[in-house]
Amino acid sequence: MPEALAHIEGVGLHPFGRHPEQSLGDLAAVAIDAALRDGGCEIGDIDVACVGNSLGGALAGQETIRGQVALRSSGLTGIPVLNVENACASSSSALHAAIMAVRSGMYRTALAVGVEKMYVGDTSQTLRALGNAATEGLYRVHGLQFTSLYAMAAKAYLADNPGAELADFARVSVKNAANGARNDAAQFRRPRTVEQVLESRPIAEPLTLLMCCGIADGASAAVVTAAPRSDRAVRVLASALRSGAYRSPRADPGPSSVALAARDAYEQAGVGAQDVGVVELHDAAAPQELMHLEDLGLSERGRAWEMTRAGETALDGRLPVNPSGGLLSRGHAIGATGLAQVAEVCTQLRGEAGERQIRSSRPVGLTLNTGGRTVDDRAAIAVHLLAAR
Amino acid sequence: MPEALAHIEGVGLHPFGRHPEQSLGDLAAVAIDAALRDGGCEIGDIDVACVGNSLGGALAGQETIRGQVALRSSGLTGIPVLNVENACASSSSALHAAIMAVRSGMYRTALAVGVEKMYVGDTSQTLRALGNAATEGLYRVHGLQFTSLYAMAAKAYLADNPGAELADFARVSVKNAANGARNDAAQFRRPRTVEQVLESRPIAEPLTLLMCCGIADGASAAVVTAAPRSDRAVRVLASALRSGAYRSPRADPGPSSVALAARDAYEQAGVGAQDVGVVELHDAAAPQELMHLEDLGLSERGRAWEMTRAGETALDGRLPVNPSGGLLSRGHAIGATGLAQVAEVCTQLRGEAGERQIRSSRPVGLTLNTGGRTVDDRAAIAVHLLAAR
Repeated sequence: MPEALAHIEGVGLHPFGRHPEQSLGDLAAVAIDAALRDGGCEIGDIDVACVGNSLGGALAGQETIRGQVALRSSGLTGIPVLNVENACASSSSALHAAIMAVRSGMYRTALAVGVEKMYVGDTSQTLRALGNAATEGLYRVHGLQFTSLYAMAAKAYLADNPGAELADFARVSVKNAANGARNDAAQFRRPRTVEQVLESRPIAEPLTLLMCCGIADGASAAVVTAAPRSDRAVRVLASALRSGAYRSPRADPGPSSVALAARDAYEQAGVGAQDVGVVELHDAAAPQELMHLEDLGLSERGRAWEMTRAGETALDGRLPVNPSGGLLSRGHAIGATGLAQVAEVCTQLRGEAGERQIRSSRPVGLTLNTGGRTVDDRAAIAVHLLAAR
Repeated sequence: MPEALAHIEGVGLHPFGRHPEQSLGDLAAVAIDAALRDGGCEIGDIDVACVGNSLGGALAGQETIRGQVALRSSGLTGIPVLNVENACASSSSALHAAIMAVRSGMYRTALAVGVEKMYVGDTSQTLRALGNAATEGLYRVHGLQFTSLYAMAAKAYLADNPGAELADFARVSVKNAANGARNDAAQFRRPRTVEQVLESRPIAEPLTLLMCCGIADGASAAVVTAAPRSDRAVRVLASALRSGAYRSPRADPGPSSVALAARDAYEQAGVGAQDVGVVELHDAAAPQELMHLEDLGLSERGRAWEMTRAGETALDGRLPVNPSGGLLSRGHAIGATGLAQVAEVCTQLRGEAGERQIRSSRPVGLTLNTGGRTVDDRAAIAVHLLAAR
């Protein structure tokens, strides 16, 4: 196995869901405390904090020093704090910064945090704030929300892959809900049938409610070091961050920015798609899971719907995808999602996932977190490759 | 001289001032283009961008992917972008991240950018947004703006130092305006007299208008590498970031967070205050310059007013401070200020500052950029130590 870029000593979450009584600091404190305990670390061990959050300015009225304000609830004061934003990829970007921090030799132990509050009592306010994750005019001028963009990509996927059908998107949602039902930290824990998904109310044709992730409050954290402190430390083999072309399969045969980020990650790690045994990816809408699997090289082009239909991405399948329940079921507290994915993969790689533990002979776990949209580009794509020691 | 942490290949600015016609992207493009030309680099050389901005969400309606949106104007797409926020220390924090990026070995060439637009037609909106740089309740509940906090510190300084008088604050403003008058990129280029400063309208007793920095639009950029590409590259000897106690001289005899950040920086660099020959520091209000000089160890405790009165911090003095004009005269486009300070020190160290060129036999330049306020702490303090090759 290749040399590690860094190590993740511990991970922690605040369960995703509706938590109106909790401030950003309250949510973060639970995740940070869990990550420190998981890593056998204390607050005094932390040399720098990289804090990802996306909507705190628009929704919580706290801009520009959100990390410092949130970390006070954990008693974390006096240390350097980098506030990192990258829309839905904010906390994987914070992890990327934390890895740079310890790799640089400037810090020994870094804390990466993701935290978000999206339930603010008025969903239209949350939707307006989410519009900010795209170039200002895209939402404000053209009225394009993310669900509409996903719907257009879904239609292109169906047009490009004649065997695929709407029920294949529903099957992704059913699988992820079955996984989420086994996850205490998941927001939506009720299993679904294909019929229920197809019959749920339309959101943006052809997407129905249960093909789209919800909004959530939640937090996630990881303790990162260069040299491992314990045998439980998970090795970071690659941390690839990018921006770039959002390409529907139809529009352009060239590689999408997700494919390029995956290529970067495999090159950094010196491994290939065939080494990946567990995946957490960005299923903000169900069809995205299929497109991402193909862009990541984990499915042949145009074949991820068949893979899903055959049960290969289920918990007991050849390549379990979104064992946590994914964005669709674990939930999508946007600035907290990337590190929640990393937390799940670490837990799986250590064999500590309880009744949702996957079995794989392949050693590498992969996370894909995407965020934001400029005119025709994704703003941020983060791919991390992880392996047990 | 100690080994360098990283190198700054080139620096660039968009002059600070009132630029209603320019978007964040327009402002950033000018600074980035200048930094690339200064460093003999091309856009294709940039492997990662760290973008500091503080008020784009509250004032320009673009949250969370501000860097990606702004960088499109420069044709910088497809690369990794980290959006970094730390109130008035956003761009020095972006530089800190850029230094980590190249030190980590994960990137060869990093671009650090600071950009801000504060003139939005309605100053009360800008003031509300600035309130966000403090813990939410401090401004919204208690009505405390930064000027009030500076005014309280100013009174404590006068009480603690019996020889000092209000005119000593005015002398800081007069000195910095004289420097700014020689700087094409400065916002306020008219010289001032002590009388004019004292007689300008009261802002927060005892501070008058000309003792307080204004608001500004502007941008700044630096190209950062681990190994130097040319002889003009400036060596980064230290990059220290912190949060922590804001202590007025009166309240507590212990070291303030600025003093601790300076100690970190001197330790990193293996140099001392006696090696510093030029300083750009955070004179958001004139008295801050005196307190900072003492906290940085560049003046004896309680003696910076005498140093200033004796002309030691003037352009032709023993230790020139704020040769650019400082926040008071070059201007304070908050998310762009930290890198503007670094740009000035690089220009001075290279001997390229024209009619404001300082002469010093001491080899080290220091920048101090502070930002934000939680209940009783500064949110971010960044100290950089630089030296010519």
